[in-house]
Amino acid sequence: MTTPLKPLDDAATSFARRHIGPSPRDVAAMLETVGAKSVAELMAQTLPGTIRQATPLTLEPALSEVEAIGHMRALAAQNQVFTSLIGQGYSGTIMPAVIQRNILENPAWYTAYTPYQPEISQGRLEALFNFQTMICDLTGLDVANASLLDEGTAAAEAMALAERSARAKTKAFFVDRNVHPQTLAVLRTRAEPLGWQLIVGDPVKDLDGAEVFGGLLQYPETTGALRDPRADIAKLHDKGALAILAADLLALTVIASPGELGADIAIGSAQRFGVPMGYGGPHAAYMAVRDALKRSLPGRIVGLSVDSRGAPAYRLALQTREQHIRREKATSNICTAQVLLAVIAAMYAVYHGPDGLKSIARTAHRRAAVLAAGLRKLGFAPASDSFFDTVLVEAGAKCDAIITRAESQRINLGRDGSRLRIALDETTTADVVEAVWRAFGGELSYAAIEAEARDAVPAELKRQRPFLTHPVFHAHRSETEMLRYLRKLADRDLALDRAMIPLGSCTMKLNATTEMIPLTWPEFSSLHPFVPRAQAAGYHTMFADLQDWLCRISGYDAVSLQPNSGAQGEYAGLLAIRGYHAARGEGHRTICLIPSSAHGTNPASAHMVGMEVVVVGCDSNGNVDLADLKAKAELHSAKLAAIMITYPSTHGVFEEHIRDICDIVHAHGGQVYLDGANLNAQVGLSRPGDYGADVSHFNLHKTFCIPHGGGGPGMGPIGVKAHLAPFLPGHPATDAATPSPVGPVSAAPYGSASILTISYIYMLLMGGEGLTRATEIAILNANYVAARLDPHFPVLYRNERGRIAHECIIDPRPLKQTCGVTVDDIAKRLIDYGFHAPTMSFPVAGTLMIEPTESESKAELDRFCDAMIAIRKEIAAVEQGRFTIEASPLRHAPHTVHDIADDDWNRAYRRSEGCFPEGTSRTDKYWCPVGRVDNVYGDRNLVCSCPPIGDYAQAAE
Amino acid sequence: MTTPLKPLDDAATSFARRHIGPSPRDVAAMLETVGAKSVAELMAQTLPGTIRQATPLTLEPALSEVEAIGHMRALAAQNQVFTSLIGQGYSGTIMPAVIQRNILENPAWYTAYTPYQPEISQGRLEALFNFQTMICDLTGLDVANASLLDEGTAAAEAMALAERSARAKTKAFFVDRNVHPQTLAVLRTRAEPLGWQLIVGDPVKDLDGAEVFGGLLQYPETTGALRDPRADIAKLHDKGALAILAADLLALTVIASPGELGADIAIGSAQRFGVPMGYGGPHAAYMAVRDALKRSLPGRIVGLSVDSRGAPAYRLALQTREQHIRREKATSNICTAQVLLAVIAAMYAVYHGPDGLKSIARTAHRRAAVLAAGLRKLGFAPASDSFFDTVLVEAGAKCDAIITRAESQRINLGRDGSRLRIALDETTTADVVEAVWRAFGGELSYAAIEAEARDAVPAELKRQRPFLTHPVFHAHRSETEMLRYLRKLADRDLALDRAMIPLGSCTMKLNATTEMIPLTWPEFSSLHPFVPRAQAAGYHTMFADLQDWLCRISGYDAVSLQPNSGAQGEYAGLLAIRGYHAARGEGHRTICLIPSSAHGTNPASAHMVGMEVVVVGCDSNGNVDLADLKAKAELHSAKLAAIMITYPSTHGVFEEHIRDICDIVHAHGGQVYLDGANLNAQVGLSRPGDYGADVSHFNLHKTFCIPHGGGGPGMGPIGVKAHLAPFLPGHPATDAATPSPVGPVSAAPYGSASILTISYIYMLLMGGEGLTRATEIAILNANYVAARLDPHFPVLYRNERGRIAHECIIDPRPLKQTCGVTVDDIAKRLIDYGFHAPTMSFPVAGTLMIEPTESESKAELDRFCDAMIAIRKEIAAVEQGRFTIEASPLRHAPHTVHDIADDDWNRAYRRSEGCFPEGTSRTDKYWCPVGRVDNVYGDRNLVCSCPPIGDYAQAAE
Repeated sequence: MTTPLKPLDDAATSFARRHIGPSPRDVAAMLETVGAKSVAELMAQTLPGTIRQATPLTLEPALSEVEAIGHMRALAAQNQVFTSLIGQGYSGTIMPAVIQRNILENPAWYTAYTPYQPEISQGRLEALFNFQTMICDLTGLDVANASLLDEGTAAAEAMALAERSARAKTKAFFVDRNVHPQTLAVLRTRAEPLGWQLIVGDPVKDLDGAEVFGGLLQYPETTGALRDPRADIAKLHDKGALAILAADLLALTVIASPGELGADIAIGSAQRFGVPMGYGGPHAAYMAVRDALKRSLPGRIVGLSVDSRGAPAYRLALQTREQHIRREKATSNICTAQVLLAVIAAMYAVYHGPDGLKSIARTAHRRAAVLAAGLRKLGFAPASDSFFDTVLVEAGAKCDAIITRAESQRINLGRDGSRLRIALDETTTADVVEAVWRAFGGELSYAAIEAEARDAVPAELKRQRPFLTHPVFHAHRSETEMLRYLRKLADRDLALDRAMIPLGSCTMKLNATTEMIPLTWPEFSSLHPFVPRAQAAGYHTMFADLQDWLCRISGYDAVSLQPNSGAQGEYAGLLAIRGYHAARGEGHRTICLIPSSAHGTNPASAHMVGMEVVVVGCDSNGNVDLADLKAKAELHSAKLAAIMITYPSTHGVFEEHIRDICDIVHAHGGQVYLDGANLNAQVGLSRPGDYGADVSHFNLHKTFCIPHGGGGPGMGPIGVKAHLAPFLPGHPATDAATPSPVGPVSAAPYGSASILTISYIYMLLMGGEGLTRATEIAILNANYVAARLDPHFPVLYRNERGRIAHECIIDPRPLKQTCGVTVDDIAKRLIDYGFHAPTMSFPVAGTLMIEPTESESKAELDRFCDAMIAIRKEIAAVEQGRFTIEASPLRHAPHTVHDIADDDWNRAYRRSEGCFPEGTSRTDKYWCPVGRVDNVYGDRNLVCSCPPIGDYAQAAE
Repeated sequence: MTTPLKPLDDAATSFARRHIGPSPRDVAAMLETVGAKSVAELMAQTLPGTIRQATPLTLEPALSEVEAIGHMRALAAQNQVFTSLIGQGYSGTIMPAVIQRNILENPAWYTAYTPYQPEISQGRLEALFNFQTMICDLTGLDVANASLLDEGTAAAEAMALAERSARAKTKAFFVDRNVHPQTLAVLRTRAEPLGWQLIVGDPVKDLDGAEVFGGLLQYPETTGALRDPRADIAKLHDKGALAILAADLLALTVIASPGELGADIAIGSAQRFGVPMGYGGPHAAYMAVRDALKRSLPGRIVGLSVDSRGAPAYRLALQTREQHIRREKATSNICTAQVLLAVIAAMYAVYHGPDGLKSIARTAHRRAAVLAAGLRKLGFAPASDSFFDTVLVEAGAKCDAIITRAESQRINLGRDGSRLRIALDETTTADVVEAVWRAFGGELSYAAIEAEARDAVPAELKRQRPFLTHPVFHAHRSETEMLRYLRKLADRDLALDRAMIPLGSCTMKLNATTEMIPLTWPEFSSLHPFVPRAQAAGYHTMFADLQDWLCRISGYDAVSLQPNSGAQGEYAGLLAIRGYHAARGEGHRTICLIPSSAHGTNPASAHMVGMEVVVVGCDSNGNVDLADLKAKAELHSAKLAAIMITYPSTHGVFEEHIRDICDIVHAHGGQVYLDGANLNAQVGLSRPGDYGADVSHFNLHKTFCIPHGGGGPGMGPIGVKAHLAPFLPGHPATDAATPSPVGPVSAAPYGSASILTISYIYMLLMGGEGLTRATEIAILNANYVAARLDPHFPVLYRNERGRIAHECIIDPRPLKQTCGVTVDDIAKRLIDYGFHAPTMSFPVAGTLMIEPTESESKAELDRFCDAMIAIRKEIAAVEQGRFTIEASPLRHAPHTVHDIADDDWNRAYRRSEGCFPEGTSRTDKYWCPVGRVDNVYGDRNLVCSCPPIGDYAQAAE
């Protein structure tokens, strides 16, 4: 007899009961299927006893949803929303309400996954295509990616791109002293481990003698000044170096584009296109390049290809550049974009159109010109006569008094020594300008000064080229049209709001509404990242709680919230290890052991901190080959820096010997980086910090409920043991007085601060007991799916007691032998059944990895298992010769309305069989808008006439 | 040459530009099509010069969306959210966040229309079916409707039902003195004009001698006391009277149901099932009856029928009971429900399930029991030992001090003389109970009292019968499952977020996101309607502005915001006219003239105030037959009370002689009720108060942007000239000291106060100029559609200069002669083209009435016109004999996935032709989930085994 679970709380209002899919009755039935007497027994069979945590996880007592919202309101009240004229890469902006409600607050958009399965992602792919079009148009360059994490890391990626691509083969890079300080700091962090020298100076004089592979200029400068960079660019080109402009997107609607000016690369932030500042993020950064550089462009690129009927279809292009295929040879460790934010920025442009954007830009510029005229009258001459929306003045001894008077009017000014920066934006009203004058000691009338103020964009920098000429930027000017466009795109996609997304390693669990609500409150969304700390007291209370709870969950001693993706977390963690070794005089430790089954980000991140990757093999059960590990650790003992290991393993199993693995590495002087991707199988049951790990990142967008946003944002804070705490990333905004030994890895000190609210509320709602229960059910759900599917598709790896962790790999490879069916056929056929495919060919080519998470109910698990079993029957029909694989519904999958409406249907199976396979609902069917997308065609015929990718084609999936 | 319009505002942020569909360039093109040189010329051709308003409409200067939200935040800050324990029919409740975001804040739900076209409404029809199932289960009665406006009007409707249906043919009705005071007041208002006597008393003694047709008891009483009503019900039955219980839905989960107790009718409010109090509304009231009474049940009823393939399909049942068919013989003037709120309440039950609801009820009861025990300890013995969640105590002279101490803790108590009522609810915590004790002068510990408190539901009243046994109330217990259920239902429906809804008379315009945002802020949503006025200062500022602006728009002198539907507005307006006549000693004026083209609500409302309807004919141009009007006014001069007239007419034309019509009626001592349904054609151009009307209602859910919510809520404030102002509806909560001559028409003094924010923000955003422009474009859009369609489907009525107003009637009747095509065929075929049908057969049977509104862009108008023209071609194919009408795609419309996937397709047209007619998108097609619904079958086979409706079948459309 199995023992049903007692509900966590009898109250109907217990949130854990809402978050966790299976009811207590379901749990009892599922235990019976998997052959375990109780959840406790199943856990004992799943996790090695040696790693179980000694005491139950305790956080604060779980709150109800109403209480959690009340708690967040109290925190929000501790934050103060001033008008921030600080600038420095972050601006006030207005997110149109129709976009806020129908994208940012709409689960159809925010619960979607990265568009790896293009057939069910055409909506967000079109939105990202719009984003790329917008970036190309505004920058005047040929190819743009689908966004990067933030402007600082985009600059670092551009530097790396220049290093790879420039004719000049030096190790030095020039940085204009007038780039944003945080950008410079991120560049320093990135350059140092790679041995690149940064030359920071005035391009007018300091470029002349320098040998560099590239140079970065801010346009307009962080000071607000608008300089013509053509001469600087020419100098860089003369040296064989690449010229990078960090450009303000709104300014580009009225000033000459980087492409026109000769730049090779443009980067920057799309934040001010409708994305709230959020105390630092998340936002979408952009990068655009000349055509010749596109093969080196990091990040996601959306391209146009064709589907099985030859119709246009979007999909991710040139994936062979990326880390999941190229590993340490990848162009970067980036494996995400800021999709949701890029979509918002693109829709902002769609809604305003070129004229609207210009109008916004001109208004901001005009206000700045009037501001400058007034300041002149008050005796504060702007440092430059050419500017877009930002004015800098020398205030000398009056600086403090001015700042104080501004703050008393709830206005923040930017400050650099005794110079004050006033950056205006879309939200600036004449009242604000007058208040600034008041802070500078004068009572002036905006209307009066308006008459005498002159525009401040020099004639030679005025934009001439048209932009956003595509019809999509002209057709949605009314809210009704916009609303319908958003709905149409959303309907083309399949997200968590319609069906389970059983993606192994990705943990597609519930993103509860209550978790999403405070995010868009102005007290969280409208804070500039560099406001005085007192204005963000609510944020800092939350940070402290979150750090405390993550420590209790993980067994670590300190947490940095800065890394704004999992890959950034890996990078920051390795920087900490590197810093630790260096501080002990062991800077020669540069070997990083990585098991062959690791995520592609692991070797790519190791490469970024200058480490050399040594691959450790796996045994036939999918576990790390201990003998090989020992041998390699010994061989590299003197230079051993670290091991990067995922636990439970990427094979979905809790290896028995994790403690031994950690011990071996430690014995040879190495540190253990434990990849937190699979933390969803551990929370409340075991703690990396207890069994030997030194540092981990936490994918808050997996285990802790930040929605995937269609491919970002994520967050990857890291936890470390005490000895590594001094080497967590610093930031000039927080540690200017005593800089950390390790610099920042993100542009903002707390990464994408605003979405931390999501994970925080999740923990508030679940408490320690709820989180633990979630882990247990995630493991039960996975074992249930494994038990149901194993007779049909063998489960590849299990532990010694026959259990898997929170995900499982099933193996259809033998079927390829028997009848030619591929993993693609199964994945695409699942779309006809209304499901997103499991993870394909990772970590084992030709297999599928399934992770159900705790949020899926037994009913949905059964629907999925039934679909897989029905597909197995279809495969059997091929095996039995009913039709060939080429003629089968598997190969023709996914089926679209174009198929079903085909008046000339002549397939080997009935049209109803193709479109409505066994057990699916006709009434509520999800129709993907395109048939199977041809990836090779798309890469061979890139929209921007990209050359065939040759060598890389082989490596493609 | 036509003159293009100058944009209202060059700023891209002008809201009017977002609200209005056509761009200035579109406007120019459309003027060319309609043959007008300018908008001004078109207006001069459309409206009679005699009624044009003298000066432009001026309100406040239009705000931007950001400014409007700022303004609303300032108003919100003036409202104070106390914990209200006032009870009296309104309770604190928790709207689950997943429901708030995905229904109340989701345009797929809130922009839908009343489900008259069942094929595109299966989602909300299922939700309403769930509501009815829930009401039947909880009340233990056989048939429930799909909701009514509020508990007060539901009681009045129940009284009227009893009068129609009871064996006892008396004119008296018994009301327990312990019903909610506002319910009693609404009953008085309703009874008086119909000559019904209300006997208010104690059922135990006052029922004995009385001859009544029915009696109403509150269960539990407004005092909180829980009495067994069986003896009272038996007495009523002995008299041949019907027994009505006004029952609390949450209480019914733990106490015996009205059906079990013998009641014939149950009514009440579903507010506490997750619907915020909103300072009075909107909420869904319910009504359930014994099977024998179902033919007399007022309001919408959803029933199950079958579609063209025999599959189950929901649709509105027994429509022949309703006013749009039965006119003054209708069971009531109700022509709406509170669909959105009923859907929320039903989903609350779906999410919690029976166990969850019982748990909520038991917790509230337990808190009340503990509260009572504590009060006893403090010397305040509860008036009753039996109660559910509400405790009443005599406080004597201490009353004021207790109230003050409660308020100082931000708690409102209920008060009735020197008795204090403390009503607990889902949101009440132990802290609140302790605070109440503190207000009563004692420091007690909840935990300590908990131990000694006894439950207070008497054994004989404990509920025995199970409820909500249907699987839908058990399958969606996790948020993930709930989210997907909501998405699934939303996807089955076609609302404004996907396509134009060209419904004549219904004004389906943009419901802008910004207008919807403040609605769900606690400062607006969480106020009890009877809080001290000072706590609602923000609301009252808004009321005053709104009244002022409606007066400026309409030319009236005073406005009442109380009527919570258009029909209630008519009723309130006629009560004002009746009161006016009576006050002048002319109470004998009871004749109401109504043109034959009037909305069905007009005669039904006239009937409700005891007036006699005399129909005035129309001439062949659709105008009021002036000669007939004169004749009838003269004939009935002595008894003439009023005329009810719609302007522009229901034929979509500005009649030339509206001033003459008003003059004629005034000359005979009558008053002019001008139905405001078509105000969207007048705002800023003409004012009813200027050209002779005395009173009008304003459909805020048409002209002023309250979304239709899938069939409610609406709001129908009325404006009156000064002489009628004293006769606007009063309310015991606001005029107890000096009661108005006319009592309340709604349960709450300001109707559905919270949604007034929507219309208010619309006016803030548009300003006078924007509103005027909207009217002009609404007229232009209609004339454009008329110009494009007239060559294919003749436009039936125009004014003398060939112009229509804001809507037009097109006439396919001749085609029925040529080839048998019906208006239904056209309407259903439009679904295949992705459109909701225009208004069918109103006001002229066999025709279609089209109203595009100002919010539709030229592109969408063209898409619609193209679809209509393509349909005309399909009709021509029938005329030309390509197929018979029976075999045509017109008759088989709408086409579903079941059609297109039919492996045995054998129709006279290709399947692609059926499913993807000319010009439609395959990729983004809306698929309705069922084929054409069989209305007759459904009414003949009512789910609750209703007898055939016989006589009424003829009258069905």
